[in-house]
Amino acid sequence: MKIGVLGTGTVGITLGTKLVELGYQVKMGSRTPDNEKAAEWVKRAGEGASQGTFADAASFGEVLFNCTGGGVSIEALKLAGAQNLKGKTLVDVANTLDFSKGMPPTLTVLNTDSLGEQIQREFPEAKVVKTLNTVAAPIMVDPKLVQGDHDVFMSGDDPQAKGQVQRILREFGWRNVIDLGDISTARGTEMWLALWVRLMMGFQSPMFNVHIQRSLDAPDPATASRLRGQR
Amino acid sequence: MKIGVLGTGTVGITLGTKLVELGYQVKMGSRTPDNEKAAEWVKRAGEGASQGTFADAASFGEVLFNCTGGGVSIEALKLAGAQNLKGKTLVDVANTLDFSKGMPPTLTVLNTDSLGEQIQREFPEAKVVKTLNTVAAPIMVDPKLVQGDHDVFMSGDDPQAKGQVQRILREFGWRNVIDLGDISTARGTEMWLALWVRLMMGFQSPMFNVHIQRSLDAPDPATASRLRGQR
Repeated sequence: MKIGVLGTGTVGITLGTKLVELGYQVKMGSRTPDNEKAAEWVKRAGEGASQGTFADAASFGEVLFNCTGGGVSIEALKLAGAQNLKGKTLVDVANTLDFSKGMPPTLTVLNTDSLGEQIQREFPEAKVVKTLNTVAAPIMVDPKLVQGDHDVFMSGDDPQAKGQVQRILREFGWRNVIDLGDISTARGTEMWLALWVRLMMGFQSPMFNVHIQRSLDAPDPATASRLRGQR
Repeated sequence: MKIGVLGTGTVGITLGTKLVELGYQVKMGSRTPDNEKAAEWVKRAGEGASQGTFADAASFGEVLFNCTGGGVSIEALKLAGAQNLKGKTLVDVANTLDFSKGMPPTLTVLNTDSLGEQIQREFPEAKVVKTLNTVAAPIMVDPKLVQGDHDVFMSGDDPQAKGQVQRILREFGWRNVIDLGDISTARGTEMWLALWVRLMMGFQSPMFNVHIQRSLDAPDPATASRLRGQR
């Protein structure tokens, strides 16, 4: 399958590298067709890796990853072109953290809206799935870096797109994928960043994640049998 | 030790009941000295339980719990009286969730401020410690209701007050208390409610909590020896 990765930062490089390793053909998109970071990545990642503009990558990919900074994602996706997003699964892993006033950063979209919803509204024919935005880039593609059970969340309106993303997440190694519901639930995972940032500052490391622990009295159907076994 | 519990809702009743069980003398405060819910609670909780106005409870307690709704906490604490909060540990367990526009609720204070900070600014001579606001009331006083390891957070400017609160949390049964830092870190735990609400809606139950899982490569000093033992 062909995948377009939009953005040449740490997140785009990390996801693009892993997707090539998994056997996908990956085109990394940026504002210019000859972006230096993308060119270096193409050399390193080897066969299956290519580069181009945002529009080139979006046109190329059957599934797209938005790895641009949250503050410029809408602009970058407009450069990618609505016609190139149409009908495609668009995995949004971005956050709107604003570091311009120092630490801790604040969020520029929150509470009654989220970046995931903004993207879905702006590109109604794309199938936006918000995920992976709650963990640092190395953990996104290698959850075993964090010990024990821990979880990744998924928000989106299209069940088939979420199924497609879930299969990719499992290829990355994710065992616990929590489907929160429609794209408006991205507010929850984007606002989690406020606590994530404070934990990161305290730990002096971004290498952590959350695990949701449940009550034995309130198992969901999926875990009920496992929990009964533990009683 | 004498404790003042401000608020007669589920959280105040739950905390008050547990604190009486633990042997504390607890006065529950409300707007009026003869609040019916408080009166019922006094009968049920038995010896060690009493009731009064916000000012009565604040004057009585050496440690105070703010269990009023986040939207009215500042007003309730003004009724309690700044002179009655002076020099005391004020445990703030409230959230500013606004359900007036239906589900999901929004937060009325966030991003660049928090209720914890607002209270600390309004009552600079109180020692505000934000904690327990990330879990449902039954879990606050009985963390064993949730299976496995899971965590409670603590934010505050005064180390001694945090030590005092940590001892009470341990009496409640909390094994993992994560000290996030100064009171501004309450922004993180208050904003966590946005994700908490979506999980609660998905699980159809508030009986869950988070556990922070770390990388083996980045242990903090407190957990380093335990982690080495697991390698």
